Amino acid sequence: MAPSAKSAAKSAAKKSSGSPLCVPLPELLPLAGVRLGAAAAGIRYQGRTDLVMVELAAGTTVAGVFTRNKCPGAPVDWNRAALKKGRKARAVVINAGNANVFTGKIGAAATRTTAEAAAELVGCKPREVMLASTGVIGEVMAVDKLVAALPALHGALAEDSWEAAARGILTTDTFPKGAVRKASIGGVEVTLQGFCKGSGMIAPDMATMLCFVFTDAKIPPEALQAALAKGVDTSFNCTTVDSDTSTSDTVLLFATGQAKHPRVPAEGGAMLRGFRAALSDLLADLAQQVARDGEGARHFIRIDVTGAASNGSARRVAKVVAESPLVKTAVAGEDANWGRIVAAVGRAGEPADRDTLSIAIGGVWMARNGTVVDGYDEAPVAQHMKGHEIHIEIDLGLGRGKATVWTCDLTHGYIDINADYRS
Amino acid sequence: MAPSAKSAAKSAAKKSSGSPLCVPLPELLPLAGVRLGAAAAGIRYQGRTDLVMVELAAGTTVAGVFTRNKCPGAPVDWNRAALKKGRKARAVVINAGNANVFTGKIGAAATRTTAEAAAELVGCKPREVMLASTGVIGEVMAVDKLVAALPALHGALAEDSWEAAARGILTTDTFPKGAVRKASIGGVEVTLQGFCKGSGMIAPDMATMLCFVFTDAKIPPEALQAALAKGVDTSFNCTTVDSDTSTSDTVLLFATGQAKHPRVPAEGGAMLRGFRAALSDLLADLAQQVARDGEGARHFIRIDVTGAASNGSARRVAKVVAESPLVKTAVAGEDANWGRIVAAVGRAGEPADRDTLSIAIGGVWMARNGTVVDGYDEAPVAQHMKGHEIHIEIDLGLGRGKATVWTCDLTHGYIDINADYRS
Repeated sequence: MAPSAKSAAKSAAKKSSGSPLCVPLPELLPLAGVRLGAAAAGIRYQGRTDLVMVELAAGTTVAGVFTRNKCPGAPVDWNRAALKKGRKARAVVINAGNANVFTGKIGAAATRTTAEAAAELVGCKPREVMLASTGVIGEVMAVDKLVAALPALHGALAEDSWEAAARGILTTDTFPKGAVRKASIGGVEVTLQGFCKGSGMIAPDMATMLCFVFTDAKIPPEALQAALAKGVDTSFNCTTVDSDTSTSDTVLLFATGQAKHPRVPAEGGAMLRGFRAALSDLLADLAQQVARDGEGARHFIRIDVTGAASNGSARRVAKVVAESPLVKTAVAGEDANWGRIVAAVGRAGEPADRDTLSIAIGGVWMARNGTVVDGYDEAPVAQHMKGHEIHIEIDLGLGRGKATVWTCDLTHGYIDINADYRS
Repeated sequence: MAPSAKSAAKSAAKKSSGSPLCVPLPELLPLAGVRLGAAAAGIRYQGRTDLVMVELAAGTTVAGVFTRNKCPGAPVDWNRAALKKGRKARAVVINAGNANVFTGKIGAAATRTTAEAAAELVGCKPREVMLASTGVIGEVMAVDKLVAALPALHGALAEDSWEAAARGILTTDTFPKGAVRKASIGGVEVTLQGFCKGSGMIAPDMATMLCFVFTDAKIPPEALQAALAKGVDTSFNCTTVDSDTSTSDTVLLFATGQAKHPRVPAEGGAMLRGFRAALSDLLADLAQQVARDGEGARHFIRIDVTGAASNGSARRVAKVVAESPLVKTAVAGEDANWGRIVAAVGRAGEPADRDTLSIAIGGVWMARNGTVVDGYDEAPVAQHMKGHEIHIEIDLGLGRGKATVWTCDLTHGYIDINADYRS
C-alpha cells in the first residue's frame, strides 16, 4: 500500500488543484450537550489531525445507519452490537488513515480497546462509545497510538471545536463538509448540525463515507432511528461517486436532549414532522457535498428521473446513469452526449421503452419519445456543459415514479488519485 | 457529437500508442459458402473502410444473440423480426460510424432500405439479410451513401477478403480480432471462424460489440441457436470493459451447410458436442480479445471466483469486481490493492462472508479467511502487477459455485478516448 509520505503528497496535490465545486463550511456554533476536539495521533498521516473525539451529555440517544457491504469494518461491527444492547451514547471516537477492515480478531480487539479507553475517560460503559475508522483496508491499526493520544484529546474537548472535528476526519476530501438546520418541536426551536467526509463512495486507501449529526432535541431512540433511516434514504442513498460502496460507511445521529421542548412520544409522530424535514434536508446537503468533492470531480451532476414505473425503479435508473463511466466521462469532456444516457437507461434492467423516452440536459429537451427533437440546437446545451453544475433530466414516459441522484464526473483526477501510486 | 476529423485523429493517436495486449489476427482462409468484402462508403469516417458485406450460400442457417438493452438499435430490431420469420440468411451488411440507434421511424426505414438493396443484389428476400451498425447514437444515418456503395462492394466480394472484413467493422479498436477452430461432426472436419469488434462494451460515439461467426457445417437452426446461446453465455457474457452494455451488441452465427458430414438432427444432440465445444472456445477467444482491446487498456485481467453459493452468484461477484473503478484503477497503477477487491466482493449483493473470504493475485494468496496472510510478502505480487496479464482469484469459501470473467484496467487512456473531445 502507498506509504503515508506519498499519500500526503497526493492529498496536497489534489488540494492545490482547487475544486471548483467547493462549498464553504458553515458556521458551526456550540450545541448544548456536545463537546469535541481533534488531535494528531500519527496513526498514518504525519503533520495533521487524524483523531476526533466527541463527548455527549448523559441521556443522549443515538441512531445509526451502516454500510450494507458484506465485509464491514470492525468499527461497524462494534456499533451494531452496541446499539443492539442500548440506544444511549456518551462518546464517539473517529480516526482517519486506517479503516480497521479485514483485520480479523486483532481488528475486533482494537475496537474494544478503543471503546474501553474512551469509556474510562468519560465515565460510561464501553458500549456507550461509538466508533468509526476510515483509511486503508487490511492493515492492522496502530491502536496503541490511538489510545495513547486519547487522554490529552479528552482533556482538551471544547464546545467550539466543530471545525477542527470536521477537518480531523477527512482523507482524500479537499474541503471539510458541514451543515446546520433549525426545526421546531412543540413550538420550541431545536438545532441539528453535523459534519461528514467522502470522497469516493469508497477508496479503501483513503476514504469512506462517514457522517455525524447532532441535535439538542430530546428524542426517543426509536423515533430517532426512524427519522435517520428516512433521511439517509433520500440523501446518502441517492449519492454515488464511483459505485464502490464502502466497507465502513457510517451515519450516526445523536440527540443530547438539552432543548426544553414538550416530551416527544416514543413513536415520534406528527410532533417530529418539522424535525424530520430539517434532518432530511441537512443530510441531503451533506450528501451533495460528498458528491461535489468526489475524487477528481470537476462537475457536480444532478440526475432527475421521472415517468418511471415506481420511485424505486426511477432511483435504479438514475443510479445506473450516474454510475455509467461513459456518461461520467462525457460530462468530464463537457460533451452533451445524450446517446450515452439512452444506452445507460436501456441497460438499467428497469421498465423502459425507447419510444417513450425523453432526455434533457440543462433544461433543454434534446430527445423526445425515442428520437432527437426536430431542429435540436446544441448551442445552449453546450454552454450548460461548460458550467460546473450539470442537470440531466430523464422522462421514461411510463408512470409516476421519480427520483433524484447526485454524482460527479469521471476525470483524469480520479485516475491520478486511484492509480498513479507508482508513477 | 465529435466531428469525424477529430474521431479519426483520436483513433490514430490510440493506434500509435501501441497496445501491449494486441493479439495478431490469425490466418483466415476461405470458408465454403462465404464471400465477403469491405468498402469505404464515407458514412462517417474518411479514408478508411466502413462498410462490410458478406454473401452466404443458399441454405445457410443463422442464429443470433442480441443486446438486452431496452433501447436497442434499429438493426437489432430488424434482425429480431427477420429471425422470427425464418432462420435462413443469405447476406450480412455491417457499417461502422453510425449505430442507427434512437433514430425513430427514420432509423427503421433505413434498415429496410439497406436490406432491400442488399437482397436485390443477392437475389433473396430482404428478411434473409442480417444487419449490424456501430458508431454514434442518435444521429440519422446516411443510408443513401451506404446503399450507393453496395453494388460495387457486392461486385467485388471474394472468398479471401476476411482480413478486410475484420478491419472494416472496427471503431475505436486498435487491432482486428479473429479466431478459427476446427471440430468434427460425425467424423467429418468442419471449420468455424469469425471476427468481432469492441472496444468499450459500449462507447456510443465509436463502439459496440459486434461478432460474426461462420461455419461450413450444416446445422439446423434450433441446434445452431442453442449452441450459440450457450457459447455466448460463457464468453461475451463474461467480458466487461466498462459495464456499459451497448444498444447494438450483436453476435451472429451462420452455417453455410457446405461440409459433407452426416445429417445433424434438429435438436443437435451428442453429434454436435465437439462443435459446441469448438464454438464456445472460439467465442471465448474473441471475447478475450475484446477485453484486451478495451478502451485505454494496458492490463488484461482474468478474475476467477470459486467457493460461491452457485455459478450465477460467482459470476455476479466476478462482474462487480471486474467493473469496480477502484479495482480497475489499482491495476492501472500496478498496485496489488486487495482491500479494494474485498470491498467490491462485499458490495456485490451475493452471499459472502468476510471471515471465509480469501484472495490471491498472480497465484499468491495474500488474504485468507478474513485477514491478511501471516508473513505476507508483497514482492512477488508487485512483480506480477508489472506484467500485462493480471490474474485475480477470489475464494468465497461458501460453496461450489465458480465463474471466470475477463476485463481490463481503467486508465488515463479511457478518459482520453471518452472525455477529451473538447481538449
